[in-house]
Amino acid sequence: MSKPKGFEKPVGVRDYLPRAVSKLRAIERNVLECMERWGYRQIMTPTMEYYDTVGVASSTSDQKLFKLLNNRGTTLVLRGDMTAPIARVVSSLLKEEVLPLRLSYHANVFRAIEEEAGREAEFFQTGLELVGDDSPEADAEVVALAIASLQAAGVRSFKIAMGHVGFLNGLFEEIIPGRAKEQEELKELLLKRDVVGYRAAIGGLDISRDHLSKLESILRLRGGKEICEQAEALSMEPQALSSISHLCKVWEVLEAYGVAEHVLIDLTMIGDFSYYTGMTFEGYAGEIGSPVCSGGRYDNLLQQFGRAVPATGFALKTNRIVDGIEGIQTPVKLPVLIRYDESGRKEAFQKAAELRSAGNTVVTRLIGGREPSGGEPMYEAVYTYKSGATAPGIL
Amino acid sequence: MSKPKGFEKPVGVRDYLPRAVSKLRAIERNVLECMERWGYRQIMTPTMEYYDTVGVASSTSDQKLFKLLNNRGTTLVLRGDMTAPIARVVSSLLKEEVLPLRLSYHANVFRAIEEEAGREAEFFQTGLELVGDDSPEADAEVVALAIASLQAAGVRSFKIAMGHVGFLNGLFEEIIPGRAKEQEELKELLLKRDVVGYRAAIGGLDISRDHLSKLESILRLRGGKEICEQAEALSMEPQALSSISHLCKVWEVLEAYGVAEHVLIDLTMIGDFSYYTGMTFEGYAGEIGSPVCSGGRYDNLLQQFGRAVPATGFALKTNRIVDGIEGIQTPVKLPVLIRYDESGRKEAFQKAAELRSAGNTVVTRLIGGREPSGGEPMYEAVYTYKSGATAPGIL
Repeated sequence: MSKPKGFEKPVGVRDYLPRAVSKLRAIERNVLECMERWGYRQIMTPTMEYYDTVGVASSTSDQKLFKLLNNRGTTLVLRGDMTAPIARVVSSLLKEEVLPLRLSYHANVFRAIEEEAGREAEFFQTGLELVGDDSPEADAEVVALAIASLQAAGVRSFKIAMGHVGFLNGLFEEIIPGRAKEQEELKELLLKRDVVGYRAAIGGLDISRDHLSKLESILRLRGGKEICEQAEALSMEPQALSSISHLCKVWEVLEAYGVAEHVLIDLTMIGDFSYYTGMTFEGYAGEIGSPVCSGGRYDNLLQQFGRAVPATGFALKTNRIVDGIEGIQTPVKLPVLIRYDESGRKEAFQKAAELRSAGNTVVTRLIGGREPSGGEPMYEAVYTYKSGATAPGIL
Repeated sequence: MSKPKGFEKPVGVRDYLPRAVSKLRAIERNVLECMERWGYRQIMTPTMEYYDTVGVASSTSDQKLFKLLNNRGTTLVLRGDMTAPIARVVSSLLKEEVLPLRLSYHANVFRAIEEEAGREAEFFQTGLELVGDDSPEADAEVVALAIASLQAAGVRSFKIAMGHVGFLNGLFEEIIPGRAKEQEELKELLLKRDVVGYRAAIGGLDISRDHLSKLESILRLRGGKEICEQAEALSMEPQALSSISHLCKVWEVLEAYGVAEHVLIDLTMIGDFSYYTGMTFEGYAGEIGSPVCSGGRYDNLLQQFGRAVPATGFALKTNRIVDGIEGIQTPVKLPVLIRYDESGRKEAFQKAAELRSAGNTVVTRLIGGREPSGGEPMYEAVYTYKSGATAPGIL
C-alpha cells in the first residue's frame, strides 16, 4: 500500500482540539468527583497488558483485541476495557485491602476494528468497580451511581434498562434443558434486540404452547416493580426465581435512593459482556441511539486472577456523551493581551503575573515583534506598556 | 518462554494505586491550569500514529519506538513524544489557525526498552508548544513557563541549564570545518556529560593550541549573563555569534520575568532531541538525579508535516516528579460511613446525598449485610439509621 501522507493519522483514531478537550475534561472531572463523593478512589493501569492474562479475561472478543509483540516475543494487548486490568490489580497489589473495595477510573481503551467505517479504535470510558459485595445493596449502589454519573456528565434525559442474566438462563434451562447451543442463540438474538429473529427461533422449537407463550411473554416484560411479580409467575426454576428475587430487592433499594423513575426492568437485557453473571444494565439517552453506559455483576472474573470475590460495576461510554450531548457547556474564556516595548517589559510581565494569579488567562507580546498571522484574535482586554506612555492603558 | 502468571503485567509498565493517582492528578491539574493562565490550550492526540509520519519525525530513536502492525499491514507506533503528533495537528486540523499557537498537553508516551531493568516503557509528560514565533521573547516565555510549571508541580528547588545548539555547531564548524563525524562525536560526548571523554577527543584532534584551548574553555562556560560576553570572544563564526546574541536576549527577557536566578547558561547543553535547532534547556531538581524537564527550539520539524513554521516548547518528566518530589501533599480525606437497616434506608440515603452535595465522601452500608473483611477502615464519622433509634446518631 502507499505510504501515508505527512499529516495523516491512522484510521479510527482522532485528535481532540481545545474545545473538545475542555468538554471531555469537564465530563471526566465532574464524573470522577461524583464517584469520589461515593467513596470510589481512582486507579490507573498500563495501556499494555499480557494477552494471556488480561487479554483473555477481557470482555472484548479476541478478534477485536489490539495485539502486539514485545521485544521478548510475548503477545501484549492494548487494553480493551478496564474491568479485567482492575481485577488483576485487586488480585495482586490490592490483595490485602479490606473489602468491599470501591475503585474508579477514566481511561482510553482500544479496539482492532479499523476496517469498519466510523468505528473508533481508541475511545474513553469513565467507570467504577465495587468489589467484594454480592448483595442487592451493592448492585443498587452501582445503578444509582451510574444515574448520578450520567447527571454529572450533563446527560439530561436518560433511562436505565436493567435485567438479570440468571433469569434468562433459568427460564431457558427450564424450557429447553441442556440445549446449550439453542439457549445461546436465543440470548444472542435478544442481545442484538432482534425481536423478529427471536420470535422465529422460539417458533421453531419443539416445545409446548404454554412454554412458547412463556418465551414470547418475556418480550413484554418491561416496566417497573410489577414486572418482578409477573416474572415470578413465569418460572419455578430455582435460578430464575432467585434472580428475580434479587432484582426485586435491587429495585427496592433504588426506590430508597429516589431514582427508580430512571429505571426500567427489562428481562430481555443480557449485557454485551460475556463475564456478566447477575444483574446487568444499560443506559439510553434521548439524544443518542446507542447505550451511553453499561454495567453489571461479574462474580466469576476475579477468580481468573486468583482472588475469588464477587464484583459489580459500570462504565460510561464517555465519547458518545462528549459527541452527543449538549449537556456541559464550557464557557470560552478570552485571554487578556499585554503589549509592551523593551522599556515596558518588566512592568508588563509583573502585570501579567498579577492577572494570572487572579485566575485570568494572559498572553504577552513585544510591540514590533512577531504580530499574529492571519488577523488579530479576540481578547478580553488589551493592556499596553511602552516608553512615553504616561500610564499603561487599556487599548 | 513460559506463560505469564494470572496477576502479572508486562515489564516496564506500572499500576498507580489511589494515593499515587491523586499525586499524579494533582500535578497534572496544577500544571495544566498554570499553562492555561499563560494562554495555552490543551489538545489530545491518539495513542497510535503512523510510523512513516509521526514515527520517523519523533525525537525517539527508531529502536526505542514501540511498533505494531494494524489490520491493513501498515506499521504504527505508540507515540514516543507529543511534539511530533502536535506538529502533525498544527499542519492539518489547525492549519488555518492564527499564529502564534499556544498548545499544552498531558499524555502518556511509550518506549520499547523493556530489556533495560528499571526503565519505564510507558510514562507521562506534561508539556507545551509555542508555534509560529522565532523570537527570543518566545524562547524566554517557554523557559519562564517551565519554571512556573515546576513550581506548580511542587518542585521547590531546581535549576534550568540553558544552551544553544547553534553555538556549538558554529564553533565546531570554525575549528574543524566539514568534519561532520568528529563534530557529532564531540556533541555526543557533551550530551552524555562525559567530560573526560570530551577532553581526550579534543586532545586527539590535529588543531592549534589556541583552538584546543577554545574547545576546552566551553566546559567552563557555565554561569549568568557574563557567559554570553565570554562566549562572544570565543568565536567569530556567524552562526556561533548569532546564537550567542539570541541567548543573551533570552536572558534579558528572563530577567524581566524575574526568574533569571533559576537559570544557568551552560554552553555544553545540547538537548537530547535531534530535532532541536536553537535554544535548548533542561531542568534539574535538587532531589532527583536526572532532568525533570527538557525543552528547546525546533524550527525545522513542522515543515516535515507541510507547514514550515518555527516552534519552541518543553515537557515536564511528570513521573520523575511524582516519584521524586515530596512537593504536593494530597490530604487523605476519610469517608463518612452511614449504616442503616431496611427501615432507615431511605433516610440514610437522603443524609448521604446531603453530605455528598456538601463535598463529603460518604459510603453506605446495610446493618447485618456484608461487613468489611479484614477489619474496619477509618472514618471521618459514622451515622446510624435504624428502627427503634429515637434519633439517628453518630456512633
